[in-house]
Amino acid sequence: MIPSDYRALTPETLPTRLGGLDVLLDRVGPADSWQVEEVGDGNLNLVFILRGRLGAAIVKQALPYVRLVGESWPLPLKRSFFEYNALIRQEARDPGSVPEIWYFDETQAIVVMEFLTPHIILRHGLIQGKRYENLGERLGEFCARTLFRGSDLSMKTADKKADLALFAGNVELCDITENLVFSDPYFNASLNRHTPGLEGAIARIQGDMTLKVAAQHLKMAFTSQAETMLHGDLHTGSIMVSDDDIRVIDPEFATYGPIGFDVGMLISNFLMAFMAQPGHETTPGARAVYQDWLLAVTETIWTMFEAEFTRLWREERSGILYQATLYEDQGHSLASEIARTERLGAIWRDALGFCGVEIHRRVLGLAHNADFERISDEPTRAACETRALALGTALIHGRNGLTGTPAVLDLARRIAQENHL
Amino acid sequence: MIPSDYRALTPETLPTRLGGLDVLLDRVGPADSWQVEEVGDGNLNLVFILRGRLGAAIVKQALPYVRLVGESWPLPLKRSFFEYNALIRQEARDPGSVPEIWYFDETQAIVVMEFLTPHIILRHGLIQGKRYENLGERLGEFCARTLFRGSDLSMKTADKKADLALFAGNVELCDITENLVFSDPYFNASLNRHTPGLEGAIARIQGDMTLKVAAQHLKMAFTSQAETMLHGDLHTGSIMVSDDDIRVIDPEFATYGPIGFDVGMLISNFLMAFMAQPGHETTPGARAVYQDWLLAVTETIWTMFEAEFTRLWREERSGILYQATLYEDQGHSLASEIARTERLGAIWRDALGFCGVEIHRRVLGLAHNADFERISDEPTRAACETRALALGTALIHGRNGLTGTPAVLDLARRIAQENHL
Repeated sequence: MIPSDYRALTPETLPTRLGGLDVLLDRVGPADSWQVEEVGDGNLNLVFILRGRLGAAIVKQALPYVRLVGESWPLPLKRSFFEYNALIRQEARDPGSVPEIWYFDETQAIVVMEFLTPHIILRHGLIQGKRYENLGERLGEFCARTLFRGSDLSMKTADKKADLALFAGNVELCDITENLVFSDPYFNASLNRHTPGLEGAIARIQGDMTLKVAAQHLKMAFTSQAETMLHGDLHTGSIMVSDDDIRVIDPEFATYGPIGFDVGMLISNFLMAFMAQPGHETTPGARAVYQDWLLAVTETIWTMFEAEFTRLWREERSGILYQATLYEDQGHSLASEIARTERLGAIWRDALGFCGVEIHRRVLGLAHNADFERISDEPTRAACETRALALGTALIHGRNGLTGTPAVLDLARRIAQENHL
Repeated sequence: MIPSDYRALTPETLPTRLGGLDVLLDRVGPADSWQVEEVGDGNLNLVFILRGRLGAAIVKQALPYVRLVGESWPLPLKRSFFEYNALIRQEARDPGSVPEIWYFDETQAIVVMEFLTPHIILRHGLIQGKRYENLGERLGEFCARTLFRGSDLSMKTADKKADLALFAGNVELCDITENLVFSDPYFNASLNRHTPGLEGAIARIQGDMTLKVAAQHLKMAFTSQAETMLHGDLHTGSIMVSDDDIRVIDPEFATYGPIGFDVGMLISNFLMAFMAQPGHETTPGARAVYQDWLLAVTETIWTMFEAEFTRLWREERSGILYQATLYEDQGHSLASEIARTERLGAIWRDALGFCGVEIHRRVLGLAHNADFERISDEPTRAACETRALALGTALIHGRNGLTGTPAVLDLARRIAQENHL
């Protein structure tokens, strides 16, 4: 239901409509100095860069439909409300991890935030072969802090249940994840598309009954394992980077779900970047060292996630779960450590499964990755994608047995060398 | 927060306050014929039997505090709202399984329902050694129908998420379960009480670090695995029986949680009834055949749950999980059957764990069972309870390995024969 006074912004109407906001006068300058550019290249929303005498801002407005598809696929404006609520929680849980939020208008579905510059979308950097210091460390920290601090491990249970209820309203965006990620890749869904040459790999995936069972177990985990507030769409297109800054954006898919979901989706996008590199190199092997760096970042994300989760477990375990009353206070610190490692083991297994389905859906479903899409030579793209699909399958099947990141990276390296999958 | 116009009913004020309700005039008779008796023997609420010329009714009203403890332990009236909402869903999901609901007043926290007669509380029947035909079958069916039909296996996802959000408001009653069931038995909590003679068994339980880890994993499953609408307190005191009728009452603890929770708690109370029998027999062994019957009912609950869950899986799997699109429609019916058996396996393992903690808390926590409490000879009671505790521990530790109900019943029989635990 679209409120009757909702109006989509245009570059022409924006200064009139937002020119009275003190925060914009203070930080961007008087409205008569504003220059407005619409830059949204995502799938869902309007995004404007607003420049003025004093500075710049991003104005993001939800449209009442999926921008990529058009008015035939309506999508509620309320996603802006969920995005705003997720952003302020992420900022509280990991200060400095998201853009500064300056203004929110629920009726108009508008979020105004700082303009990050000279940041670019991480995915574009990875396609260009750029390195960023501290990347895996920062992303691992972000996952640990936002996921731990949004859960019953940390929050007061009444607050957690209130947030669970609030984000349970994000039905339509969850529905996108539920269908596009967990189901569509595993049958001949109408929205699927793929590079020619993948038919054999697709037949193997869609004919693999235990894989399709596992994918639905993972879907049930996504819909039912309400452990923490997820970002919900934590891929390398939702991260902005400069040489010395890393920010996470676009959490409109936020919902309560399994801790392993964000971690797995994030790792997945680095593994896809790794598999896509041969499509971006000018001479064979030119990106080999860069590929090593991508795998090292992948490993660091998990290592840092585990280290920071461990620190928080020891220092901030103030929720209703695994209380110190039962462990440390009884002289049973070891029990707390056993519980921690078992929880991390469960998160790890979940993450590997989600990692696998994310790879499958990015190659076979509706929403593809620029990592692969920008490979113009079709046979090369098909070869890279086939390897990625094989890795996805191996991670889903192997999720309960893989012993750690070295085993995963070894698998990725091994599959990357295969030409006959 | 207590609404300013909330007033607790008394037998004297009840006819004036409810005498204008058409449903009571029609079914109980004119208010000048009413006789009112307060019969609440539970821990939380006022319960009145209202008798008139034409029939009888039960009037249940929440108090703004825990009746058992007094005004020092406030408890929101809103639990009545959750009870009403759970009852109407259970009636829709398994018609005839709950009392007919005639009236609900949210402000006054009053639910009016049919008076079940000649029903008694099942637990009292089990203490007396009474048998009920069809008991395990009916309870297994109730669990399968209410739990399957309240989940993403069956519901539209928007409806499920709305119900998840609604019942997430039942914070204070969940808090009781979270503390009294999952934590208090495992340390020296102030509300704990126990029969003299259990000190050794308590030291073993509270000193068992892996047991305490498992109990908290189960607590996290309770708080996070939002699979379906649970009854939330499905013990033999929440079931009313006559020779030919079985009804489930008192779902004010309803919340979204793991499917295995209700099943495990229910089975647990039959296993405790089994362990308590030696305390109720007039001559040694007099209840041996009855004990066999209790174990047979326990087995039937699971067997029937599994059979009915399987029927619903095959005939009513209309939710977003394990869609036929992915399985049957692709000629992969076997995948659907593999998924079903794996889900049932997960429910089984969860149920055994919940079964174990329910035993521990009923013997060691605040809220004890009449099954044991009515054993007046302390050494006999302590012996029965010690065996029950040992079974609880074995089920929690063994939950991932026990192969089925025969293995569980064998364990129960074996432990029941031990005198030196």
